Amino acid sequence: MTLSEQYHSVRQQSELLCAPLQKEDYVVQPVADVSPPKWHLGHTTWFFETFVLKAYQKAYKEFDSQYNYVFNSYYETVGARVIRTDRGNLSRPSVEDVYRYRRYVNEQMMVLLSGNETDTQLKELVILGLNHEQQHQELLLTDIKYILGHNPLFPVYSDEFIESTAEETAEPFHQIAEDVYEIGFSDEGFSFDNESGRHRVWLDSFKISTTLVTNGEYLEFIESGGYRQFQFWHAEGWDWVNRNNIQAPLYWHLAEGQWVHYTLAGTAPIAANMPLAHISYYEAAAFANWKNRRLPTEAEWEVASDALGWGQRWEWTNSSYLPYPGFKTAPGALGEYNGKFMVNQMVLRGASVATPKGHSRNTYRNFFHPHLRWQYTGIRLIQ
Amino acid sequence: MTLSEQYHSVRQQSELLCAPLQKEDYVVQPVADVSPPKWHLGHTTWFFETFVLKAYQKAYKEFDSQYNYVFNSYYETVGARVIRTDRGNLSRPSVEDVYRYRRYVNEQMMVLLSGNETDTQLKELVILGLNHEQQHQELLLTDIKYILGHNPLFPVYSDEFIESTAEETAEPFHQIAEDVYEIGFSDEGFSFDNESGRHRVWLDSFKISTTLVTNGEYLEFIESGGYRQFQFWHAEGWDWVNRNNIQAPLYWHLAEGQWVHYTLAGTAPIAANMPLAHISYYEAAAFANWKNRRLPTEAEWEVASDALGWGQRWEWTNSSYLPYPGFKTAPGALGEYNGKFMVNQMVLRGASVATPKGHSRNTYRNFFHPHLRWQYTGIRLIQ
Amino acid sequence: MTLSEQYHSVRQQSELLCAPLQKEDYVVQPVADVSPPKWHLGHTTWFFETFVLKAYQKAYKEFDSQYNYVFNSYYETVGARVIRTDRGNLSRPSVEDVYRYRRYVNEQMMVLLSGNETDTQLKELVILGLNHEQQHQELLLTDIKYILGHNPLFPVYSDEFIESTAEETAEPFHQIAEDVYEIGFSDEGFSFDNESGRHRVWLDSFKISTTLVTNGEYLEFIESGGYRQFQFWHAEGWDWVNRNNIQAPLYWHLAEGQWVHYTLAGTAPIAANMPLAHISYYEAAAFANWKNRRLPTEAEWEVASDALGWGQRWEWTNSSYLPYPGFKTAPGALGEYNGKFMVNQMVLRGASVATPKGHSRNTYRNFFHPHLRWQYTGIRLIQ
Amino acid sequence: MTLSEQYHSVRQQSELLCAPLQKEDYVVQPVADVSPPKWHLGHTTWFFETFVLKAYQKAYKEFDSQYNYVFNSYYETVGARVIRTDRGNLSRPSVEDVYRYRRYVNEQMMVLLSGNETDTQLKELVILGLNHEQQHQELLLTDIKYILGHNPLFPVYSDEFIESTAEETAEPFHQIAEDVYEIGFSDEGFSFDNESGRHRVWLDSFKISTTLVTNGEYLEFIESGGYRQFQFWHAEGWDWVNRNNIQAPLYWHLAEGQWVHYTLAGTAPIAANMPLAHISYYEAAAFANWKNRRLPTEAEWEVASDALGWGQRWEWTNSSYLPYPGFKTAPGALGEYNGKFMVNQMVLRGASVATPKGHSRNTYRNFFHPHLRWQYTGIRLIQ
Repeated sequence: MTLSEQYHSVRQQSELLCAPLQKEDYVVQPVADVSPPKWHLGHTTWFFETFVLKAYQKAYKEFDSQYNYVFNSYYETVGARVIRTDRGNLSRPSVEDVYRYRRYVNEQMMVLLSGNETDTQLKELVILGLNHEQQHQELLLTDIKYILGHNPLFPVYSDEFIESTAEETAEPFHQIAEDVYEIGFSDEGFSFDNESGRHRVWLDSFKISTTLVTNGEYLEFIESGGYRQFQFWHAEGWDWVNRNNIQAPLYWHLAEGQWVHYTLAGTAPIAANMPLAHISYYEAAAFANWKNRRLPTEAEWEVASDALGWGQRWEWTNSSYLPYPGFKTAPGALGEYNGKFMVNQMVLRGASVATPKGHSRNTYRNFFHPHLRWQYTGIRLIQ
Repeated sequence: MTLSEQYHSVRQQSELLCAPLQKEDYVVQPVADVSPPKWHLGHTTWFFETFVLKAYQKAYKEFDSQYNYVFNSYYETVGARVIRTDRGNLSRPSVEDVYRYRRYVNEQMMVLLSGNETDTQLKELVILGLNHEQQHQELLLTDIKYILGHNPLFPVYSDEFIESTAEETAEPFHQIAEDVYEIGFSDEGFSFDNESGRHRVWLDSFKISTTLVTNGEYLEFIESGGYRQFQFWHAEGWDWVNRNNIQAPLYWHLAEGQWVHYTLAGTAPIAANMPLAHISYYEAAAFANWKNRRLPTEAEWEVASDALGWGQRWEWTNSSYLPYPGFKTAPGALGEYNGKFMVNQMVLRGASVATPKGHSRNTYRNFFHPHLRWQYTGIRLIQ
Repeated sequence: MTLSEQYHSVRQQSELLCAPLQKEDYVVQPVADVSPPKWHLGHTTWFFETFVLKAYQKAYKEFDSQYNYVFNSYYETVGARVIRTDRGNLSRPSVEDVYRYRRYVNEQMMVLLSGNETDTQLKELVILGLNHEQQHQELLLTDIKYILGHNPLFPVYSDEFIESTAEETAEPFHQIAEDVYEIGFSDEGFSFDNESGRHRVWLDSFKISTTLVTNGEYLEFIESGGYRQFQFWHAEGWDWVNRNNIQAPLYWHLAEGQWVHYTLAGTAPIAANMPLAHISYYEAAAFANWKNRRLPTEAEWEVASDALGWGQRWEWTNSSYLPYPGFKTAPGALGEYNGKFMVNQMVLRGASVATPKGHSRNTYRNFFHPHLRWQYTGIRLIQ
Repeated sequence: MTLSEQYHSVRQQSELLCAPLQKEDYVVQPVADVSPPKWHLGHTTWFFETFVLKAYQKAYKEFDSQYNYVFNSYYETVGARVIRTDRGNLSRPSVEDVYRYRRYVNEQMMVLLSGNETDTQLKELVILGLNHEQQHQELLLTDIKYILGHNPLFPVYSDEFIESTAEETAEPFHQIAEDVYEIGFSDEGFSFDNESGRHRVWLDSFKISTTLVTNGEYLEFIESGGYRQFQFWHAEGWDWVNRNNIQAPLYWHLAEGQWVHYTLAGTAPIAANMPLAHISYYEAAAFANWKNRRLPTEAEWEVASDALGWGQRWEWTNSSYLPYPGFKTAPGALGEYNGKFMVNQMVLRGASVATPKGHSRNTYRNFFHPHLRWQYTGIRLIQ
């Protein structure tokens, strides 16, 4: 695929994901972490306009000078912005205007790329922009799930969206011997700055589960009173459970004595043999304690990854999100991409059913605050 | 007009007010006090469905059983409801569904009314419902103004909406002699429960301004440092000014050294001779102090009202919202209409450019918390 | 009594009230509305230093220049101050230093007064300062009750402090005929600015209870589920009940199925025939609704007061705290005394067991926010 | 020293640290993280009463059954407790009662220890209790500094308390070669559960500064605008700086254009050559970024520690507080000691001028939330 073709394919995919939406669904922001779908569509476009077109397209005329203010996410370098919690207060630009904005930027990008496919720096920027858009494609799905799944009418997104498939495995555990290993990205091709810097780590020997924790296993935790016994929890997690009256994973509801959950294909009974989703790090850690097991570190996960059938859930690790040895932020606005978030978040490894095809790697470092649950998060245990 | 005609006319007016909106504008709720337009359209319809159709229409089949939860505003009697601050998080029911709901309820109402125009109790309920809808028509306009006026693109609602006309007057002050007067509603026709119970009050003599405070007069207050001198302010108002960094009425902006304000017809320079709008009670009281004047009480206002050209602004009085002598709440859910709000709010008298035609009376008691500014509020002084 | 003798007597009384305290009790501030006893002792002294000695004593040397910052309560005119919620964070000045400060100011005041007993303006200021100190004597007792009554050890303040005596009455109700009456202070002697300006009011006829609501009557309200039925409550009160899980008056506890309450003489069973205390305006209004009665207005209370055995409880009225006709704030710092609080508070009339002897009048206007309960508040009903 | 002698010595030291206090200083709690000195004295005593005397002393009669509620810090296992932010609201038990409590428990402990010096489990518990008390001795000093240093009178604690001495060094940097190293406690003697489990780690080669960052170096950061340039900060740190208007380390004040700081020996000018103190992790990380350096990991610090003159400041590392391989919580209440805090905190290594003699080890893992500054925290850099 040429870069233009890749560009076209990724950009189109974002719009396909929104096809099932009604216009009203594009607008709302029920909690700060969830952004309105039209904001995702605009912001990913703004990324190309700001970092590519303004830099490389001679005499580029921006679509609307106000959009920088509206669609900047967190780049301090490029000026003032709508604060995150206000995104859902903006009825304008309208959905139609946002699609017009996309078409305009796409056309300009096509012109630019047609003449510059050999400029390495440009190419790298465009590929970063496409990976950035793929990250937002995952967020689009999880944010849409939050918007529809917190509506009292529980509307279906798509009958065909499959959130879980059962895992089969020959050996329940995979063993790794103690040694010095290498982790981090070193291949050809794209990676984010936070996963670069391949480096050595010492690992003690360990045995890692080849399958994810299932709904059925987690139900045992719930039914044995796991949410009501402080000894399994971090102090902060226990506080979180009590302050928010948490009793089950996100999207689980007790309906006439039976657990059901909202999925993008509608509300359905919990299937015991499917991988668990939508739990916080606190819940993952408490479950592991209750099981007398522990979560893997990210190094353990990466070293063992080839033996694991990963990809359905983002798996909470017990590693904090910290810089790899030798990590350096890039100069300029793009340097704000990852480094400035390296405090008070936990690393998740793998990928999920919402991750775009071709966007996953076993070196990928995802990260979220420990209380967050709206991603397709899951649990894998170390014996 | 027959009751059916009145019903049709009022109901249609709500939809006419929304005609200039884009679909996205119907959905958002930038602050708790502002409701999404589609919520107003649904809630006023729910009022007829809940209090009229369910009570009077035999075998009435409700449009959607979930809507009671979505569109109940604050009636504890009729069950659980979406909390006020969550209204803007609901993308569904869609705008189209809400209009379908309106058509369905309108048709049912037409059927009901065609056979029952003589039932007095029904008639009273319908007229209450229409007055209720007219109250929401005023809120529709002020909420739309808030939604568009807080959008960084400042979209125009309608070029034709006139927010202010200059007042002319022969005598600047009107004098009332000391005496026992009567206030409160006593005429034929509709009134709300809070204004009923005509009763005597003693008034000392006073002189009341026949015109409203203008933008120009208020600008003098601003320019003389009124917002920076505590001695004009209630302690609570002074705290409000500082915590929120208030420096001018709502919708006023300094653009290149000149004051402009957002209006429903777009952004425009401040016209000095037009009546001031969008100030809180705190600001009204501070301005009066600065002028060495005071605000009228609601009794003074009502007794003098025939001599005043009122109707452009809701005028802050210095009366708290308290029950009239002999006030009784109605039995049942409708008893929640007014009485339960009679604490910590101030009375406003008159009407505004956003008040529907035919919906104003000189006995009407409007009320808001002292810090609120999104209504067309204004100031009239007592010498 | 000469002014010097009055001064001596009032000032000494504040210290007598603190005699039962341990040093630690002087320091703490469990909630914002309660001030540490040593702050009261210092602040009342600062009042004399700031408004009397600095103004009238030639070459007065202040005790400590920092104390203006520490002991100013809310007077913006006289400079920066410790914010209210920080008073309990200050271990210094020590209790001993505060007493030393009192002695120093008392000595200076004696010198000043001995030579100036005929200066009318000085005399008025001193009398204001003594009334101010008497107000703080009431707060000293209620704040001490809060401090000790919220300590898990429930220490006794004084075995001899009597909080309630049973009321006897021949006629349960007193009737007042409709007419124009006069209210407000007009006698010789001291009054606060907010009660001055005797003026006429129209009153419809009414019957007022000659006794206060008792614990026993209130217990019926509790036992009939009064705290769980929204229809008796203001919307704001209902919210307050639920957010704070209110189930009884302040200081009431269920101990092994029986209601007891903390009093300054220690914990004791509730006596059914004693006047109720420590309820908010919300509770007073809900109780009145439940009884199918109402609270008096302050004008009704004042006109009827000679027929009532008032003085045990501050009685919530249904009047908001607003200026009397013709109210003017005094120039300078003392003008901040009352006027700036005239919004969002309710008037209480009468006096309480904590009010100093000689400090009560039937024109006295006390005022608090509707949710506050730490004063000895009570209920009187209108039939 | 016998165990009894050790017990006596450590327990006495807590009281010596409080000798300079006035009684009022024992009571207050200006922020949640700071506890009142009398609470520290009581809580450390409660530890011996609860975990030693109740378990080992036959027929032990507790001093006061209420004290468990008052002096429990966070042990869910042993029942309800005063919430942390309420500690400063308790005037009772009085300071005298707390000392009486200490004497009572000390006497009982002496009786117990005199007959049981050979019981290993008892001995271990007592040594844990003494180390626990030493941790609170450090907190006593830092909490006293906060209480006095946030009082507008800035009282001196002790003229003799030395907070800083200049460091001398031959080589500014110490180099460590890449290799597998071991870290964690393995010696004889006492250690906390979180530092046990000696284990291997891989380290790349690095050069670590042998001295701490000085006030003078940090002043350059301030003067070059470090607090106003987002690019040096974590996103969360930048938010913290702006929300709290941070402009310098805690206790620094600009007095007539010159930086001074509050110390336990009183207010003094900043000495440029002394080690910096009282900065948050955010500030430490921003300073390192500005210098183009980085903070050490805890493994790097421990491996290099013998070459460093550590002990004046707790040094922020870039390691999150996470369990060592094989970490297990102890059974019962003491298992709550460390493990449940292992999320969202950063590790500090070394010790400070406030750490008791004999209480420091190069394996010691201290930990605090990244925004906290009231400990004697400092910075060491990696080149």
